[in-house]
Amino acid sequence: MKAVRLHAYHQMPVVEEVPDPVVSGPLDVVIKVGGAGVCRTDLHVMEGQWAAAMGVGLPYTLGHENAGWVHEVGSAVTNVAVGDTVILHPTPTCGLCRACRAGQDMHCSQSTFPGLNTDGGMAEYLLTSARACVKLDATTRPEDVAALADAGITAYHAVRKAVPLLYPGTTCVLIGAGGLGHIGIQCLLALTSTRVVVVDANPDALKLAEQLGAHETVLAGESSVDTVKDLTDGEGAEVVLDFVAEQGAEQAGFAMTRPGGSYFVIGYGGTLTVPTLDIISTERNIVGNIVGTYNELAELMVLAQSGKVTLHTRTYPLAQAQDALRDLDAGLVRGRAILVP
Amino acid sequence: MKAVRLHAYHQMPVVEEVPDPVVSGPLDVVIKVGGAGVCRTDLHVMEGQWAAAMGVGLPYTLGHENAGWVHEVGSAVTNVAVGDTVILHPTPTCGLCRACRAGQDMHCSQSTFPGLNTDGGMAEYLLTSARACVKLDATTRPEDVAALADAGITAYHAVRKAVPLLYPGTTCVLIGAGGLGHIGIQCLLALTSTRVVVVDANPDALKLAEQLGAHETVLAGESSVDTVKDLTDGEGAEVVLDFVAEQGAEQAGFAMTRPGGSYFVIGYGGTLTVPTLDIISTERNIVGNIVGTYNELAELMVLAQSGKVTLHTRTYPLAQAQDALRDLDAGLVRGRAILVP
Amino acid sequence: MKAVRLHAYHQMPVVEEVPDPVVSGPLDVVIKVGGAGVCRTDLHVMEGQWAAAMGVGLPYTLGHENAGWVHEVGSAVTNVAVGDTVILHPTPTCGLCRACRAGQDMHCSQSTFPGLNTDGGMAEYLLTSARACVKLDATTRPEDVAALADAGITAYHAVRKAVPLLYPGTTCVLIGAGGLGHIGIQCLLALTSTRVVVVDANPDALKLAEQLGAHETVLAGESSVDTVKDLTDGEGAEVVLDFVAEQGAEQAGFAMTRPGGSYFVIGYGGTLTVPTLDIISTERNIVGNIVGTYNELAELMVLAQSGKVTLHTRTYPLAQAQDALRDLDAGLVRGRAILVP
Amino acid sequence: MKAVRLHAYHQMPVVEEVPDPVVSGPLDVVIKVGGAGVCRTDLHVMEGQWAAAMGVGLPYTLGHENAGWVHEVGSAVTNVAVGDTVILHPTPTCGLCRACRAGQDMHCSQSTFPGLNTDGGMAEYLLTSARACVKLDATTRPEDVAALADAGITAYHAVRKAVPLLYPGTTCVLIGAGGLGHIGIQCLLALTSTRVVVVDANPDALKLAEQLGAHETVLAGESSVDTVKDLTDGEGAEVVLDFVAEQGAEQAGFAMTRPGGSYFVIGYGGTLTVPTLDIISTERNIVGNIVGTYNELAELMVLAQSGKVTLHTRTYPLAQAQDALRDLDAGLVRGRAILVP
Repeated sequence: MKAVRLHAYHQMPVVEEVPDPVVSGPLDVVIKVGGAGVCRTDLHVMEGQWAAAMGVGLPYTLGHENAGWVHEVGSAVTNVAVGDTVILHPTPTCGLCRACRAGQDMHCSQSTFPGLNTDGGMAEYLLTSARACVKLDATTRPEDVAALADAGITAYHAVRKAVPLLYPGTTCVLIGAGGLGHIGIQCLLALTSTRVVVVDANPDALKLAEQLGAHETVLAGESSVDTVKDLTDGEGAEVVLDFVAEQGAEQAGFAMTRPGGSYFVIGYGGTLTVPTLDIISTERNIVGNIVGTYNELAELMVLAQSGKVTLHTRTYPLAQAQDALRDLDAGLVRGRAILVP
Repeated sequence: MKAVRLHAYHQMPVVEEVPDPVVSGPLDVVIKVGGAGVCRTDLHVMEGQWAAAMGVGLPYTLGHENAGWVHEVGSAVTNVAVGDTVILHPTPTCGLCRACRAGQDMHCSQSTFPGLNTDGGMAEYLLTSARACVKLDATTRPEDVAALADAGITAYHAVRKAVPLLYPGTTCVLIGAGGLGHIGIQCLLALTSTRVVVVDANPDALKLAEQLGAHETVLAGESSVDTVKDLTDGEGAEVVLDFVAEQGAEQAGFAMTRPGGSYFVIGYGGTLTVPTLDIISTERNIVGNIVGTYNELAELMVLAQSGKVTLHTRTYPLAQAQDALRDLDAGLVRGRAILVP
Repeated sequence: MKAVRLHAYHQMPVVEEVPDPVVSGPLDVVIKVGGAGVCRTDLHVMEGQWAAAMGVGLPYTLGHENAGWVHEVGSAVTNVAVGDTVILHPTPTCGLCRACRAGQDMHCSQSTFPGLNTDGGMAEYLLTSARACVKLDATTRPEDVAALADAGITAYHAVRKAVPLLYPGTTCVLIGAGGLGHIGIQCLLALTSTRVVVVDANPDALKLAEQLGAHETVLAGESSVDTVKDLTDGEGAEVVLDFVAEQGAEQAGFAMTRPGGSYFVIGYGGTLTVPTLDIISTERNIVGNIVGTYNELAELMVLAQSGKVTLHTRTYPLAQAQDALRDLDAGLVRGRAILVP
Repeated sequence: MKAVRLHAYHQMPVVEEVPDPVVSGPLDVVIKVGGAGVCRTDLHVMEGQWAAAMGVGLPYTLGHENAGWVHEVGSAVTNVAVGDTVILHPTPTCGLCRACRAGQDMHCSQSTFPGLNTDGGMAEYLLTSARACVKLDATTRPEDVAALADAGITAYHAVRKAVPLLYPGTTCVLIGAGGLGHIGIQCLLALTSTRVVVVDANPDALKLAEQLGAHETVLAGESSVDTVKDLTDGEGAEVVLDFVAEQGAEQAGFAMTRPGGSYFVIGYGGTLTVPTLDIISTERNIVGNIVGTYNELAELMVLAQSGKVTLHTRTYPLAQAQDALRDLDAGLVRGRAILVP
């Protein structure tokens, strides 16, 4: 089959022939890929930023946002059958550790991360596990939802954790209305009646936020903390969801919370520096977020299939993977680039 | 009456005669003070560290950890009567703002803080509010419990918030087994079956921790993060309660949490510096803590009256307040110094 | 002033002159009434059903759903001022008991219930407490929102408690789309993305439910349990909100829950009979609900002022209170009858 | 091997030779049984009470409380190895349904219940699944802990759910200090600082409760509701854990809750009859409980291995299973009967 393989860091991956993956373990599932999202993380992988943490040998196949159809199943697979349309949780988990037994998939002590530390889904077929498969309506087109497999679940997970804090009358600031953030806006509107204030440095992103239903938009800049304070009686927001968390957003994001408020970190790259006095004097929280649970992905697909969460996508044939990566790097992709084999 | 009054920053307060406080508002209560705790915060107040934040005019009376007997009540007071033994929540609250209506006393938009921004309890009498009074058994001696009014409630509040995270099999690291921390140890043992690991730079404090029932003790130092990791299968603790949060404890404390773990900040003085990647990659939380609720103080008094939480105290006559403050500053007070009028 | 006074059970109340109420306590507030809801509970009061429980002496003034403008305030009132538009929490509370200190207004050990055990709001003026006043936008018309003071808060409280159970993909059955239920539907749609299935014996109520956005409607009857099961893969709903809870609805409601599901009781009048085996074998819950908290009423007003919750009302002059009660009893009131002084 | 097989309802099971179980599926595990608890449910099974619900064909092997050593493992088993000491969760689960993915083992849509609907552990060997195995310290004797596999987890699960309601100053009534209840007492004392009031009709059970640390004991009878009210300022308990739930305990148990309180049903056999008015007027809850999660069993084993939960047991050789069942039926077993192969 054809696959998008990374042979060396700081070089473009190449589309080449490799053997088809096959089922060997009892819970293995092979997917015929229908869509594979192209993500900034792929650019970071190409630059070698994840090399040490993931310890993966080159060459291997990229692609960590995948959806498709079940092609072959292992002997113990009961939750999906050949032909089913599925979206894949990004980290196939062991199912046996304490975290898995508590439903905390992202803390599994044995999970893999296809596309980061093993062969991913920018290919015609992908080897995954029964535990990663979320079954979809037969009519769903994989290319339409693939990007929800990682960008979507991450945004949904953070929003769902924030729901108990976001009763009517509260304000939620969302920093960064890009790939993840524009899904986060839709999730907030679907799950709460909070007022949504979106902060972004890009006026087009703010325009999209408004179209999606954000109640207020703020151009990121020196005065954005003050602007948020002005919008909230001088106090700040009950919750700030930071999809950027670098280049100053992390300091501004924390500063935008009100006493007793919570700053949710979802993006990364920056460094948060906070006097402990500022944490305790007004009893604020800083909340880490990573991916989400299997059930959260299933819930998000309910929102997607009912039209409450939609994605802007642009498809590329698998053979043009390099074009997709170049366009993404050049800022030419509006919404999400999706490779279609 | 006699009162311990601060006339100038960087000078010792003096014991002098002032008029007795009187009830004027309908919810006012005047307490005959039975015991007033002497706290490191009093030293910080004397140094002017709180001057800007609290905006209080000099001279005024110190003392923010108070217990005694009800002496006079306003016309609308129904929860206590003259002669009742009471301990006082440190921040009399308005009762009408959203925070008060949710039981979040420490986030009241109108509260005062006697001893910090108005006259406190190092005196024969103290003016407070019905909303601050927690009624005690008549046999309780105010001098025995006064220090629970602030040190106690703060430790209890943090522990109580951590309870849902501390099921059997977990580890809780507690940094700093001093005034607040040694109460925290007792609260942990009363409310959970977690394993308690105490970290302190003072071997005597670790000895006290052991006597109170801590399961493991670790001498604070360069290797203490590694020692905690060794005690926890290399992973770290589910919860770290940091009663120090300065001079490096804040960085070590965060580093001692396991993936998915929570770092509770209770002490203050330092600055926490954390890459956002370290917050999100393992989904950790940083949790601020300040004082506690009225009901939490009442709960803590149940533990105190049943003997589950006890305090080491040393009493000084009110007239010897300067001795108490000097002894505290010199590290000569084991447990808590209490002024008794 | 004019007031609607009940002189004897099983008789119509009469509109007569009584002295204006005046402020005497420091937290007292006198309201100029702008709208007073007429409720089935008023009919039950007239029949004497609440006589024993409430122990009120006759004559007294009816009316427990009230909104208006502040007319006079006691010396310690700080949260509202003369002229403010307000809606009143139905049970002025003491603010000092443990329940009040936890924000659980409905469990206050000292509350009153104007219109049930003391003079209510079917009058030109009403004596209440600062603690009952929720301040509204000056432009809000009291007659438009008065019915939210009791019917609304009760529906909202139950829905808000159910929110954590109602993630995307769940089903919530709502039994009884009348005065409370039609508010409950709107609250469900505002606070969750659950699928809403409405059960009612009245086709007109089902039509209203559809207009409000209910996803499925079921005519109450012998087969309604089966119909709900058919709509939920044979399993039943995660949550059933029963606004009827009499005449068989209570048995059907419990039967409509799925394993692990929760049956919320909001209406009353019937008797629930359940083998303990049926409670434990599938681990179901039965959840009582009564009124709501002060903060919940404030949150509901945010929904009302943003148009997410609206009420069908029909106004009557105060002098025609008997007409309103008769119309209600005869089933002639669509939505809620409101007396306007 | 030898196994205790039920050939006909209303007859004693017989000890007879059957083939040893063998591993066939990839997650299968065969255990060499070290201890199998004998439970009242076994008597109910023999009487045919579970025949319809479980749909099991005769003959089959009894025994649903099992511990032992791993004898053989399937190809995909990674969490235990041959020779490990293990206790078994009572219901091997699928690991793939939504309930399993949320850690709610007892709501798995595909689980089996060895000893109830398939061959159980009153035998030399038992076929189970990797997902049921909780690994223990090598020094643990299976016969000492076997009864925690079902009686223990059920008691622990209910207590753990109640923990958030049982802060200091609360009262928890525990009805029935028998097999499950005496574990529940120990769990309450380990996980909370609530006051524990034990109600039982058997004075010996109350004596045991006192020895275990219960704060108050009440002889079950006509006045026990009044006695509980007298012990709780006339109000009732925040939580009632009912391990009986038949023969009147269920009505008394509900009546012992205070306003806002929760009645936890754990036992079964009776029928609860409650006017919906009594549920809503004071907003009480009725909470079903069944078995517990895999992680809860692991947590309970931490308590057991640290000595916080201990069991009274009496061992019988497997060959004398009939004696054990007869003794249990005759009320001659103090604590729990355990069969040892």
